[in-house]
Amino acid sequence: MPSISLKGNAMPQSPIRKLVPFAEAAKKNGTKVFHLNIGQPDIKTPQVALDAVKNNAIEVLSYARSEGSEVYREKLAAYYNQHDIAVGANNIIATTGGSEALLFTIGSITDPGDEIIIPEPFYANYNGFSTASGVKVVPVISKIEDNFALPAIEEFEKLITPKTKAILICNPGNPTGYLYSQEEIEKLKQIVLKHDLFLIADEVYREFAYDGEKHNSVMALEGLENHAIMIDSVSKRYSMCGARIGCIVSKNNEFINTAIKFAQARLSPPTYALLASEAALDTPQSYFNEVIEEYQDRRNTLIEELNKIEGVRVANPKGAFYCIAELPVEDAEDFAQWILEKFNDRNETVMVAPAGGFYSTPGEGKNQVRIAYVLNKQDLIRCVEILKNALTAYKQ
Amino acid sequence: MPSISLKGNAMPQSPIRKLVPFAEAAKKNGTKVFHLNIGQPDIKTPQVALDAVKNNAIEVLSYARSEGSEVYREKLAAYYNQHDIAVGANNIIATTGGSEALLFTIGSITDPGDEIIIPEPFYANYNGFSTASGVKVVPVISKIEDNFALPAIEEFEKLITPKTKAILICNPGNPTGYLYSQEEIEKLKQIVLKHDLFLIADEVYREFAYDGEKHNSVMALEGLENHAIMIDSVSKRYSMCGARIGCIVSKNNEFINTAIKFAQARLSPPTYALLASEAALDTPQSYFNEVIEEYQDRRNTLIEELNKIEGVRVANPKGAFYCIAELPVEDAEDFAQWILEKFNDRNETVMVAPAGGFYSTPGEGKNQVRIAYVLNKQDLIRCVEILKNALTAYKQ
Repeated sequence: MPSISLKGNAMPQSPIRKLVPFAEAAKKNGTKVFHLNIGQPDIKTPQVALDAVKNNAIEVLSYARSEGSEVYREKLAAYYNQHDIAVGANNIIATTGGSEALLFTIGSITDPGDEIIIPEPFYANYNGFSTASGVKVVPVISKIEDNFALPAIEEFEKLITPKTKAILICNPGNPTGYLYSQEEIEKLKQIVLKHDLFLIADEVYREFAYDGEKHNSVMALEGLENHAIMIDSVSKRYSMCGARIGCIVSKNNEFINTAIKFAQARLSPPTYALLASEAALDTPQSYFNEVIEEYQDRRNTLIEELNKIEGVRVANPKGAFYCIAELPVEDAEDFAQWILEKFNDRNETVMVAPAGGFYSTPGEGKNQVRIAYVLNKQDLIRCVEILKNALTAYKQ
Repeated sequence: MPSISLKGNAMPQSPIRKLVPFAEAAKKNGTKVFHLNIGQPDIKTPQVALDAVKNNAIEVLSYARSEGSEVYREKLAAYYNQHDIAVGANNIIATTGGSEALLFTIGSITDPGDEIIIPEPFYANYNGFSTASGVKVVPVISKIEDNFALPAIEEFEKLITPKTKAILICNPGNPTGYLYSQEEIEKLKQIVLKHDLFLIADEVYREFAYDGEKHNSVMALEGLENHAIMIDSVSKRYSMCGARIGCIVSKNNEFINTAIKFAQARLSPPTYALLASEAALDTPQSYFNEVIEEYQDRRNTLIEELNKIEGVRVANPKGAFYCIAELPVEDAEDFAQWILEKFNDRNETVMVAPAGGFYSTPGEGKNQVRIAYVLNKQDLIRCVEILKNALTAYKQ
């Protein structure tokens, strides 16, 4: 039998994959499982996007342009310009989700053996895309006691080697919900300019900034034009995760021209999804206002309720729709499995994501979980109640 | 300015990319350009697929399962079983186009520096996916004078090294239209078993076999269960290129479990396109009968007309919707540009794909073009007339 490659073997499993069979078994046994484990919002997709697909007049479902149509990229550029990011259609490549945007970016700037520095905990699939590209993720630890703020410049500089090609941040952060300040983004600018690195910012949660705070894009920084690469996506902004449309944005033409070659090789992003994404750009501001208010409200509720449980420590997220909670258990993965496999509270239980999978330093985050507040307030209150009862029962 | 990677620089340009600006300029000058250069059929997508999307009841456009839903994969398995391929849902991973299926496959079985043997001329993007994965394409030449039949076993064996991981074929072939015989597939089976390699067959044109000949799938061969990997797609079968739904099919569980990790990292194939693809499986046989008859008719017309031009040699394709034609010119790329830039026949001209980009041996195919018969018969006749007049004018 021919052998699987080292790379194939090294590809990480999704951190919740092991739990899926236990969740399925619980459901089969009649237990209701609340899903706090994935970033799949329950928010309705904007009607204007849904209608664009329902009313389409396509007769031959043909390829779209590899980098997305001129019209779509121009509309997208107009959206960014409204958000103080001065880009044009030529600075944008439409991709199949933020995932592909990351893959093309890593492919364009790294060779096997190169390194990318990422503050951890980080979005678990950064590991997958890096492994697929033969690239090493070098983590720099951010801490729950600091609310997951950016580590000090010295911590980054300790890790920079001739193999380092980029620093990658997620802002606001998945899984931390951390929103980087202007000062922190400026700090990153200094590091990447000094060491001639790319600064990749995954800004797919860019609209989800709470408490009236401003989101600071790497694309808005002067002097960083050749270094900054933004990853974006319609998935979270318009609750359109299933569209699979993202984009790469950069003012570095050499980089854009290279990434387009990756886009050409796979021919086209999905055509129906492009229709929806183009229409979504006409979503009224009122939609975002309502959604932001809803998430902020959910976050307040979730954090307040979690803080009532003895032994639980939780960072205060300022953006996205996740938080990391430290639980009074030794092994959060064991606990997450146990509440699915062995526990229920009046026939209801909760699925959370063990946070270990969001760290690449072994042992880090072992007593933490990521909670996505993608359910309504009443359900969230009930979920925390279930977690509280489960923690009591688990310790006995 | 941070540097682009070696890999990024090595990514090949699409073979027709250089011609695009000339085609655009011709159109701006009022010249009608017939596109024989891409595999974008003009055939209508099955109504049942279009309707499934128009009538969708989605309110939250959420992620699909990474490997595609159980229901979709079961329906797809039933389709294969009707075509003498005994597989179940667990042997299938739905992907974002055949492109992603190839990328996941190469990622699962190769490490940087490994080699894949491919009979050339081959689909140009195999170069792109290989470069993106750090893998070397090793070409084995098939010849227009042999109608692009499989090279002799000895030719393959000469090229096999400890780095060789797979042989990749496209059947029926893009760009040759060649349909491998049962005997040829058996030959490949012997080679891959002897040297313990994977046999990857890109069968996206599997329905397009003409003259009553049977398509021979690598999945139908006994004894090849652990070695055979099929790449498939809805793009050509249902004229749904813009859906971006493909799949990987294999009975090698270890391989499938590895490829699923790549699928999980990118979360989900596009949800609307999955709706269309699932519905497309209900397309009546009459659709295929009509489409096959149409293509066969077009092929007959195209080959007949091309053969009337002095100095043109054309292989006789038995499948897909391409043919390779050798032209009485020295440099087909120069000619392809010239007919867009400097020539028109009553304000009409033709865009073809220079075949050099389908070879990886330098200089091979230099006087050849690929013609896609994706236009109706009358247009094809007119196209060949334009080509004939252009050849006369070009030589003067």
